[in-house]
Amino acid sequence: MNPHISEQFDAELDAARSQLMEMGGMVEKLLRDATEALVDQDAALAEKVKLADKRVNQLEVDIDEQCVNIIARRQPAASDLRTLISVMKASTDLERVGDEAGRIAKMAISLADLDYPTDEFSDFRHIATLTHQIVASGLDAFARLDTDGAMRVIASDQAIDDAYDELVRQRSSKMREDPESIEGDMCIIWAARALERIGDHAKNIGEYVVYLVRGQDLRGRGKHQLG
Amino acid sequence: MNPHISEQFDAELDAARSQLMEMGGMVEKLLRDATEALVDQDAALAEKVKLADKRVNQLEVDIDEQCVNIIARRQPAASDLRTLISVMKASTDLERVGDEAGRIAKMAISLADLDYPTDEFSDFRHIATLTHQIVASGLDAFARLDTDGAMRVIASDQAIDDAYDELVRQRSSKMREDPESIEGDMCIIWAARALERIGDHAKNIGEYVVYLVRGQDLRGRGKHQLG
Repeated sequence: MNPHISEQFDAELDAARSQLMEMGGMVEKLLRDATEALVDQDAALAEKVKLADKRVNQLEVDIDEQCVNIIARRQPAASDLRTLISVMKASTDLERVGDEAGRIAKMAISLADLDYPTDEFSDFRHIATLTHQIVASGLDAFARLDTDGAMRVIASDQAIDDAYDELVRQRSSKMREDPESIEGDMCIIWAARALERIGDHAKNIGEYVVYLVRGQDLRGRGKHQLG
Repeated sequence: MNPHISEQFDAELDAARSQLMEMGGMVEKLLRDATEALVDQDAALAEKVKLADKRVNQLEVDIDEQCVNIIARRQPAASDLRTLISVMKASTDLERVGDEAGRIAKMAISLADLDYPTDEFSDFRHIATLTHQIVASGLDAFARLDTDGAMRVIASDQAIDDAYDELVRQRSSKMREDPESIEGDMCIIWAARALERIGDHAKNIGEYVVYLVRGQDLRGRGKHQLG
């Protein structure tokens, strides 16, 4: 490849990566707004989340097209190909995080219609904090190709799963004792379920980082096997 | 490309597609077994599903490696590239269907421990039938690159969402009237939720077919835009 084309190619790769990070920032904000809307029973904020999720969906389509275009025109070597495929995969996960934030927003709207006590969100807040952290760490690890950070992301998903199981257990017994608040408790369980799924997507992003960097290592040792 | 290399390349593309279809067959069986295990409260069958899900996960990794390898070595033109990327995406969705079948199996095991009436599964059975159909139709549409079939798959996901919403509504009021059976009802709601998610994955597969075929059309009209 001549230096001019190689520079253009690097610029295209950087643009794809930046667009993914921009999408990540949008999704983080969606997630914060969705959980805030639920805890504050703020239906107006929840409606904003549902609208913003549409922009995130469009961004996934754009990133996908951009990456496929680059692959088709540039015919990149294995490690660059791996980067582009990881960007596409990560954008799919971020789009799904946006969908889950939309589901939390839907639950926030349902909950705002009920007369649910505002002081019963500490279990949900705990999971929300863990989820915000894992998404931020997953994006950081991807941006810096940090495998150690990615391994921590992969490991930390378990804490979210455990906190979620505990919330379901507690809320299920609460529902048995106080059947009147079942609708509200179900909303909170669904929203927590969405957070638990978001943890899975962040974990996927961590796995792409490992796949990416490990692949580059393999290539560095002269192997052609991918994956 | 010389004819010999072109034939090899076609054989590789076919092999990737066949492996995806094999994975699809495995996932369909997992789904059937998981829903049967739940309805029959058959913990032994549910354990088998959980084991088989591991093989499905490995198959996704294999298909992914195979496709990335083909792209790196063959540097395919846009429409073949699109096929390979669609195969990779569809395999991710099938792997997630396997995960959801695993979740249904987990619920089947929990339910088998409870003393839950065996005659209360008609709502769940209805969603299970719709879900089996949408997965089979999604795979068929992919195998035959049938956009009409794919459009029907995309449209039919709504029926599953509606049936699922209805099940949650009915079971939530039942829980209020009969708090003793909350654990069992929750198991069935979670399992139905897994079916609803499986419908989303089948819908995604339908969308890849449209993306694939529409892309080829665009290319046929001399456009270079992908997606």
